Amino acid sequence: MNDEHYMKLALQEARKAFDLDEVPVGAVVVMKDQVIGRGHNQVELLNDVTAHAEILALTSAFQHLGSKYLPEATLYVTLEPCVMCAGALYWSKIGRIVYGASDPKNGYGHTCAQSPFHPKTQVEHGLLQDECAQPMKDFFKAKRS
Amino acid sequence: MNDEHYMKLALQEARKAFDLDEVPVGAVVVMKDQVIGRGHNQVELLNDVTAHAEILALTSAFQHLGSKYLPEATLYVTLEPCVMCAGALYWSKIGRIVYGASDPKNGYGHTCAQSPFHPKTQVEHGLLQDECAQPMKDFFKAKRS
Repeated sequence: MNDEHYMKLALQEARKAFDLDEVPVGAVVVMKDQVIGRGHNQVELLNDVTAHAEILALTSAFQHLGSKYLPEATLYVTLEPCVMCAGALYWSKIGRIVYGASDPKNGYGHTCAQSPFHPKTQVEHGLLQDECAQPMKDFFKAKRS
Repeated sequence: MNDEHYMKLALQEARKAFDLDEVPVGAVVVMKDQVIGRGHNQVELLNDVTAHAEILALTSAFQHLGSKYLPEATLYVTLEPCVMCAGALYWSKIGRIVYGASDPKNGYGHTCAQSPFHPKTQVEHGLLQDECAQPMKDFFKAKRS
C-alpha cells in the first residue's frame, strides 16, 4: 500500500474526532504494510490535553509490538504535530513521519529552533494537505458561527 | 506547606522510579495546598516512552479535578522537563512549574528557541537541585559500571 492509502486512514480517524466534536486530527502508525496503531484526538472525551491523535496512535503501537521504540514504523498524521507530539515522536525513534496540513499556530515548527526529532527520523509533509486541512476549517468555522 | 516540602514529595516519586530501575524522575501537582496528582517515570514498566513522571502526574490531576486545565496548580518535578512534557504543560495551562535539576541533554531549553509554555505560566528552577540531580547521577553511574 502507498502513502496516500495510509493518509486516507488517518483522515478517517480525523473524521471520527470531528463527529465527536473534538478538534479533528487523526493518525495511524504503519509497519511492514500493517496498521499497528491508530488514534484520533480525544482531549474532550478524556478530559486530558495529552490525548492527541499521535500520542494515542503511538501508545497503541507500543502496546501492539510490546516495544517502546518504532524505528521501522511510519506515522501518518493529518496535521503537523505540536511540540508535545514532536517530543513523543523523538523518544519513540520512529523511522518516518508523514504529515498532511501545516499548523502555523501550534505546529512544532513554530517553537522549535532545530528539528525536535531523532536524527534518523525522516519527515515529509504536504501529502493530501487540502483534504487534511478541510476538517479543521469546517470545525473552527462551525465553532465561530 | 512550602515549595521545598512539595519538591521532597517529587523526590520520593523519583526514588520509587529508581527502585524500579526506571530513569529516576518524579513529579507532583499541587493545588490549594493539596497534592492532586503524582507520578514517577514508568517508561520501562509500561513499554511507553510517553510515560514520563510529568505526563502521569498531569493526567492524574486532570482525572482528579475532572478538568483538562490547571491554571491554579503548580507542578514540582525533579528534572527539567523534556520537549514532550513541556508541550503537555503548555496545553494544560498550568499556573506554575518548579523544577529542580537542569537537563542540558534532554531538557526543553536545548531544543526550544522560545518558551514553550503558556504565557501565563511561571517557571522557576534550581530548588533542591543537588538532591534532585543525585538519583540521576547514581542511576547512570550504576548503568555504566
